[in-house]
Amino acid sequence: MIKKITLALVAFFTLTTHLSHAQSPKAEKLKREVVNSVESNYEALTDLSDRIWSFEEIAFQETQSSAALADYAESLGFTVTRGVAEIPTAFVAEYGSGSPVIGILGEFDALPGLSQNKVPYKSPLNEGAPGHGCGHNLFGVASLGAAAAIKEQIESGELKGTIRFYGTPAEEKFFGKLWMIRAGLFEDVDVVMDWHPGPETKTAVQKGLALVDFQVEFFGQAAHASSDPWNGRSAGDALELYTAGINYYREHVKPTVRIHYHIQTAGEVVNVVPDYSRIWVRVRDSSREGLIPVYERVQAMAEGAAIMANVDFKVNLISGVHEILVNRTGSATLQQNLEKLGPISYTDDEQDFARKIQEATGKPQIGLVSKIEPMEETLENSMGGSTDVGDVSWVVPTIRLSATTAPNGTPWHSWAVVAAGGMSIGHKGMAYAAKALSMTMVDLFTNPELVKSVQAEFKEKKGDYVYKGFVPEGPPPINSKLQ
Amino acid sequence: MIKKITLALVAFFTLTTHLSHAQSPKAEKLKREVVNSVESNYEALTDLSDRIWSFEEIAFQETQSSAALADYAESLGFTVTRGVAEIPTAFVAEYGSGSPVIGILGEFDALPGLSQNKVPYKSPLNEGAPGHGCGHNLFGVASLGAAAAIKEQIESGELKGTIRFYGTPAEEKFFGKLWMIRAGLFEDVDVVMDWHPGPETKTAVQKGLALVDFQVEFFGQAAHASSDPWNGRSAGDALELYTAGINYYREHVKPTVRIHYHIQTAGEVVNVVPDYSRIWVRVRDSSREGLIPVYERVQAMAEGAAIMANVDFKVNLISGVHEILVNRTGSATLQQNLEKLGPISYTDDEQDFARKIQEATGKPQIGLVSKIEPMEETLENSMGGSTDVGDVSWVVPTIRLSATTAPNGTPWHSWAVVAAGGMSIGHKGMAYAAKALSMTMVDLFTNPELVKSVQAEFKEKKGDYVYKGFVPEGPPPINSKLQ
Amino acid sequence: MIKKITLALVAFFTLTTHLSHAQSPKAEKLKREVVNSVESNYEALTDLSDRIWSFEEIAFQETQSSAALADYAESLGFTVTRGVAEIPTAFVAEYGSGSPVIGILGEFDALPGLSQNKVPYKSPLNEGAPGHGCGHNLFGVASLGAAAAIKEQIESGELKGTIRFYGTPAEEKFFGKLWMIRAGLFEDVDVVMDWHPGPETKTAVQKGLALVDFQVEFFGQAAHASSDPWNGRSAGDALELYTAGINYYREHVKPTVRIHYHIQTAGEVVNVVPDYSRIWVRVRDSSREGLIPVYERVQAMAEGAAIMANVDFKVNLISGVHEILVNRTGSATLQQNLEKLGPISYTDDEQDFARKIQEATGKPQIGLVSKIEPMEETLENSMGGSTDVGDVSWVVPTIRLSATTAPNGTPWHSWAVVAAGGMSIGHKGMAYAAKALSMTMVDLFTNPELVKSVQAEFKEKKGDYVYKGFVPEGPPPINSKLQ
Amino acid sequence: MIKKITLALVAFFTLTTHLSHAQSPKAEKLKREVVNSVESNYEALTDLSDRIWSFEEIAFQETQSSAALADYAESLGFTVTRGVAEIPTAFVAEYGSGSPVIGILGEFDALPGLSQNKVPYKSPLNEGAPGHGCGHNLFGVASLGAAAAIKEQIESGELKGTIRFYGTPAEEKFFGKLWMIRAGLFEDVDVVMDWHPGPETKTAVQKGLALVDFQVEFFGQAAHASSDPWNGRSAGDALELYTAGINYYREHVKPTVRIHYHIQTAGEVVNVVPDYSRIWVRVRDSSREGLIPVYERVQAMAEGAAIMANVDFKVNLISGVHEILVNRTGSATLQQNLEKLGPISYTDDEQDFARKIQEATGKPQIGLVSKIEPMEETLENSMGGSTDVGDVSWVVPTIRLSATTAPNGTPWHSWAVVAAGGMSIGHKGMAYAAKALSMTMVDLFTNPELVKSVQAEFKEKKGDYVYKGFVPEGPPPINSKLQ
Repeated sequence: MIKKITLALVAFFTLTTHLSHAQSPKAEKLKREVVNSVESNYEALTDLSDRIWSFEEIAFQETQSSAALADYAESLGFTVTRGVAEIPTAFVAEYGSGSPVIGILGEFDALPGLSQNKVPYKSPLNEGAPGHGCGHNLFGVASLGAAAAIKEQIESGELKGTIRFYGTPAEEKFFGKLWMIRAGLFEDVDVVMDWHPGPETKTAVQKGLALVDFQVEFFGQAAHASSDPWNGRSAGDALELYTAGINYYREHVKPTVRIHYHIQTAGEVVNVVPDYSRIWVRVRDSSREGLIPVYERVQAMAEGAAIMANVDFKVNLISGVHEILVNRTGSATLQQNLEKLGPISYTDDEQDFARKIQEATGKPQIGLVSKIEPMEETLENSMGGSTDVGDVSWVVPTIRLSATTAPNGTPWHSWAVVAAGGMSIGHKGMAYAAKALSMTMVDLFTNPELVKSVQAEFKEKKGDYVYKGFVPEGPPPINSKLQ
Repeated sequence: MIKKITLALVAFFTLTTHLSHAQSPKAEKLKREVVNSVESNYEALTDLSDRIWSFEEIAFQETQSSAALADYAESLGFTVTRGVAEIPTAFVAEYGSGSPVIGILGEFDALPGLSQNKVPYKSPLNEGAPGHGCGHNLFGVASLGAAAAIKEQIESGELKGTIRFYGTPAEEKFFGKLWMIRAGLFEDVDVVMDWHPGPETKTAVQKGLALVDFQVEFFGQAAHASSDPWNGRSAGDALELYTAGINYYREHVKPTVRIHYHIQTAGEVVNVVPDYSRIWVRVRDSSREGLIPVYERVQAMAEGAAIMANVDFKVNLISGVHEILVNRTGSATLQQNLEKLGPISYTDDEQDFARKIQEATGKPQIGLVSKIEPMEETLENSMGGSTDVGDVSWVVPTIRLSATTAPNGTPWHSWAVVAAGGMSIGHKGMAYAAKALSMTMVDLFTNPELVKSVQAEFKEKKGDYVYKGFVPEGPPPINSKLQ
Repeated sequence: MIKKITLALVAFFTLTTHLSHAQSPKAEKLKREVVNSVESNYEALTDLSDRIWSFEEIAFQETQSSAALADYAESLGFTVTRGVAEIPTAFVAEYGSGSPVIGILGEFDALPGLSQNKVPYKSPLNEGAPGHGCGHNLFGVASLGAAAAIKEQIESGELKGTIRFYGTPAEEKFFGKLWMIRAGLFEDVDVVMDWHPGPETKTAVQKGLALVDFQVEFFGQAAHASSDPWNGRSAGDALELYTAGINYYREHVKPTVRIHYHIQTAGEVVNVVPDYSRIWVRVRDSSREGLIPVYERVQAMAEGAAIMANVDFKVNLISGVHEILVNRTGSATLQQNLEKLGPISYTDDEQDFARKIQEATGKPQIGLVSKIEPMEETLENSMGGSTDVGDVSWVVPTIRLSATTAPNGTPWHSWAVVAAGGMSIGHKGMAYAAKALSMTMVDLFTNPELVKSVQAEFKEKKGDYVYKGFVPEGPPPINSKLQ
Repeated sequence: MIKKITLALVAFFTLTTHLSHAQSPKAEKLKREVVNSVESNYEALTDLSDRIWSFEEIAFQETQSSAALADYAESLGFTVTRGVAEIPTAFVAEYGSGSPVIGILGEFDALPGLSQNKVPYKSPLNEGAPGHGCGHNLFGVASLGAAAAIKEQIESGELKGTIRFYGTPAEEKFFGKLWMIRAGLFEDVDVVMDWHPGPETKTAVQKGLALVDFQVEFFGQAAHASSDPWNGRSAGDALELYTAGINYYREHVKPTVRIHYHIQTAGEVVNVVPDYSRIWVRVRDSSREGLIPVYERVQAMAEGAAIMANVDFKVNLISGVHEILVNRTGSATLQQNLEKLGPISYTDDEQDFARKIQEATGKPQIGLVSKIEPMEETLENSMGGSTDVGDVSWVVPTIRLSATTAPNGTPWHSWAVVAAGGMSIGHKGMAYAAKALSMTMVDLFTNPELVKSVQAEFKEKKGDYVYKGFVPEGPPPINSKLQ
């Protein structure tokens, strides 16, 4: 099957190359216009990004951030539907009608504990508060900026079809897109685009990892730990035996698998046999297919641990994501636009800021690197992170960008990303992303053959698989106490 | 050595019996008067107890409770020294001068999470708030009531000497008396008395358990649990291996030893190799002598766990207590006064309330039992709880009472104790304790031979041991984050 | 219930005392004669003991030892039935007929690895071979000697009834008496006597411990530990998680419980995920009643461990024993005979030998101590060893003796016991035991009231309990590979 | 550095291709003659192989197998030195003199427990005895056959230089070649060849894994597990905590690392706290460089476990091997000879036998596959087995062959390899290997440029590394009890 796919890819490449040569003068013109649109809105977009940066709102609590984006879209003339998919901070902003329907994703949640000033050394703005350590303040804004540029062309009649911005909350925890997919919000879309802030500028063609999050709760019987521990059945013991089981199991998983856990509680006081414990478990693999049997095994172990400690147990699925179904046809189009745009240029002050961050984080002090690398080969097993964009990519063909918003080598999910994302380095990356995305959407709107090719690759790679998200029954865990 | 002590005890008994027969008519009269004093102050004492009950203040945070007791003492004419031993809520209230100096201990801290209404079924007053699940609202008040009764007799010239009330905070956690001993506050006392609320009325002649509390912290290196766990050194692993070591060690401790622990943190999020973990460990044995080698062993294990997980570690002594050095001579005198007082009598409503509590806690519905049992034999190895009165008992001869403040069979440290301690059942036990304590203090003040005998037994039992408390260097952990 | 038993015991004591005062001159005469009988057979008994000592045969392999005893009994005129209870080395030797039927137990198995010369320092006779480290070479011979003395009196018409010697193999492992009980061999006996070699001379009135032995086997799937460990399911992991479970469980058993295990195999080579593992587990408690729930718990854990490691498992009961049902009425009679006999006297050479053993084993060099101590109180929870005599004691009233065959303080199951048991120190203890046992049997044969009282105590203590041995279905494990 | 090597490889390839085109007619002629030599000795070689097959001798005990090969070499005129490197079963057989010196390796040890008849279903020849489950009966013989073919050409003056056969014992355990290298036996060799039986015919250009074997012993204090376990310090606990540590550590090693262990003993009986335990640990990684820090970590853990269980410990290096330093220049030459030889052809009976084996081992029944695949790319991280040829390859440039001696898909180290290696399938592979090896040696003897190129690649890849074998001080573990 791998061989078959490889052949197919060759075919796509050929086609893509052909299509790209066919770029019309109209497309060229429209690309210049969307780039201009982004530039003319630069101040508004920057201001919006800085406000979201300062809101510092974490997963499912992004009330102000979501409202700021939705309000802005509304002010531009988009039709906005708020609180979709039973999630107060999820929304859809749409403009135009008919085919094609091109979607674009925008995230805006922060990470706990990373609050930081806009300085190139660690310095919390609000000690202990969240911060945009993943650059999502830029993410949502750039995507909306790109959508706005396209909207202008639809409005002026240059483009036909529908542009739809998805305000997608809770990417860092819980994975909000899962419920948006479940609610059917992606059913009529032809192609989706997204991007992500990063230390490099490139088309994003690696799969990342599939993962599943679940909790195990153990329920025992409390007893005084000194007077009559023999009357206690320890939920703490069950949890510890469970983790022992997981660690022994590590020998028996493939090298692409990762299992990690967070002991959330294993008792409250020292002198009582604990009657309750809870652990958050995450299983990852380079594909959902490899993930499933490991997930089932680690779930099953909970019963074993419960039997050993003579307690009851409960396993709760939290959520999980698929690996990215990479679309190389769409990526190749994006790559051309990157090459057309060329690298971001930086001032000496920005490079100085970057080198100070690199110094503070122990990285080579090479400053910002924004040159456009050739499109990478898609590896069978990539490592790195996971994202709920993975799920979207199994439902709609998805084209992904990475744009430079922080110095080369910056450890992600750190104060350094917050710092750079709050000043001109981040702003420039955000604007760059808005341009590259809108240029590629121009290709999608003006070239029906391209959309067909993108969809054909998607269908071939998806094969027989019927998408099923890792989503528990019931409403999204907006006010979950599972923390 | 055991045989020698046994012989000595026989001698004390004989002496005690003799002394008790020698009770003077004056003592009899004074005992009647101190009993009357308690009764005449019943309303004030009850009010004070109910206020402390409603303050619900936990260890080292008993600001209002401490002030209420100290203010009351001051209002009665005691000389009050607040904030002793570097503890804001510790105080001493004294009256009179010269020999003998008789001390009496009063505790007043509550327990977390036990807030409860004055009803015979579980019903939190303030959900999640602390509650007086150990009856310390009654404890401090009764002791102060007894001191007040004695103070009246000193004031009127009937008794000579000094009565000193110790306001002792943080008995439930940290053990405040340790720092009061360290500050030298018990150096000039002849005999100390105390009591404890309970489900029975008796002289308290069991040793309880010695214990020591300490924390182990592990310091590793964080890493992304999926991308590069091999760059992480897990403080969580160290903690888990440490508890494994403790559990394997259980086979190799004597049956009187108990080891329990509370995992305080073993990481904060699921996808990071944790760089910090902390565990609270408690080791108990029926004596400090047996405790020490186990304590040393469990401390030493921390290094082993740290080596295994390639992390750093730190062991912090929190505090600890000695088992009670029981004074049977003094106890025998107290026993006589209990027999003289006879049991507490209850109304039908109180018995009904008691039976409802027993029903709700799954105990035989036999109501309140307050009859006076014969003085028990002191067992070589008793089980049950631990108290920092243990340390006082190795510094000064200590005579201890248990008085009924809750229905027979009530699980201690539970909502049921809070409920009963906030209404007449608790009040009656408190008044009873104040009477029994002040009557016994009359014996101590009027009979110098008794004091000598009590001290002789203390010295013989203490032998060569030079008291050393389980107290770390530096100030008491008033604002400790070690939780 | 405890109180009731205590009262009953008082009654028995009174009765016993009464009975003992009623000793007839005839009994006195017969006691002198049985003592003479033992003395006149001293050489033959000594020779027999030395032969069994040199056979060094372990559990269920005592072919020569069993034959030597059976042949000797046959040569004396006993009717011998060999190979009873499906055990080749078990036999019964009987003389006389009718009531009472008095049984006496004789063990003769050795312990692995304890071979030793008859010298007071460690010096293996046959390196690695078994040795009589529990003194059973003396045990069987003394009991048979006592039976022979009684047989002479029956033969001469002085006593009426039946004397029956039980040749009971495999006491050290597997517990042969269980199958002898299962075969009904104790159904018609009135009272049983036995003794055990030891470092003291006394009536044996402690309960010892109940225990149960079982094995857990885990069955996984082998795989190359380097190439594809993910295709392996590790029986070794299951075993290790199982022991982890046991060790965590130690916190939750009463102080009288002991759990220990022997990992028999957890894999054969380093580079294969093991598909088989096996562990021998022993659970003990001071009573069968306490034992059962722990036994069930530890068995149940095996399923938990199997689930955690994704393997199959099997639990095999090996065998187990009851604690001793102590008969204080019978013991009191034995005590009188001990006092009548007085202590064993030793030569200077024997004392010198004893002190050398004490020196070599790090004990106080006080030599042999054989004075007769007063009968001990029977403790609620005694510690120490376990024996399958426990099971006999729940089927027939059993009176037990301990006689000195090794220096005070000698660690049992050691080379020192082998050394002393092979020379005159052991021989003297053996002869002493034969005398004390036969004297007490004279009491049983001549005093029907005594037998009734002994049986009455037995019935009262046994209560409603219907004896059920810890014996698996099927034949005894004579050729078991469960090692 | 990787890039540099890649460039270098390109250079080698070019060179190699060039060299191969330069093959002289003389070389062609000699290749035909060495092939004829192998064919004419087919019966003798087959007989020798079958004898070694029937000797079934395991590591360091290959007395008969070694003698049979050495005798045969001697009978052919080789100069044989037996018992080299302090190993009785290691020998060197040499012929000729001067440059080049070409070595060839021959192994001959069997594997425990794999004895098997020459039938296509599992059927032990000698139940429990060893068997040639790795095909080493063929290995040594084919290599000697190839050496003999070269020797004939040297003897006849067609080739100049030295041919040297290394009789290398103990490849399956302990790794005999390590001590042969330590003894300097490879110091003057230009190029070494070897081969290995397998289910495919190809040049062997993967690295395999580096590994290190060591033992950890723990020394505690025995105690009766029931009477006084608190006096015991358990070596068993230490071992179990040690394995727990290893299993927790698995999260923190790179995906190429493998750690496995064999619990050799953790106590002998159920009722004694074990005072001794021993575990055999193996650490592997795709390179020695990656291996070392893991090896050091796992060693260090032993101290941690010892501290936790309060016992002493000792770590003993057993031995270990390097990954293969692959020589692609030499491999390319070998590849040409394979292509010249073409695949092995099989009879219907042989294919039938093969399919029956495939059926019995659950593999696709496709029979024997012997076609010559193109030379593989050398992977950065290959998985699979380890061999002490790895160490030779870091000391001398080494060219390696795999030849078909068992059906496709056969699980190695299984009865199926024994069966096929004892009949014509194995014999054919053996003869094929002898031909391919001798043909390639003809190239090495006749083409000095080839030898230079092979050595140049070796030097470049080896770089600065100064070889150091994983060999403990002292003599080889010939009679080791470390099992």
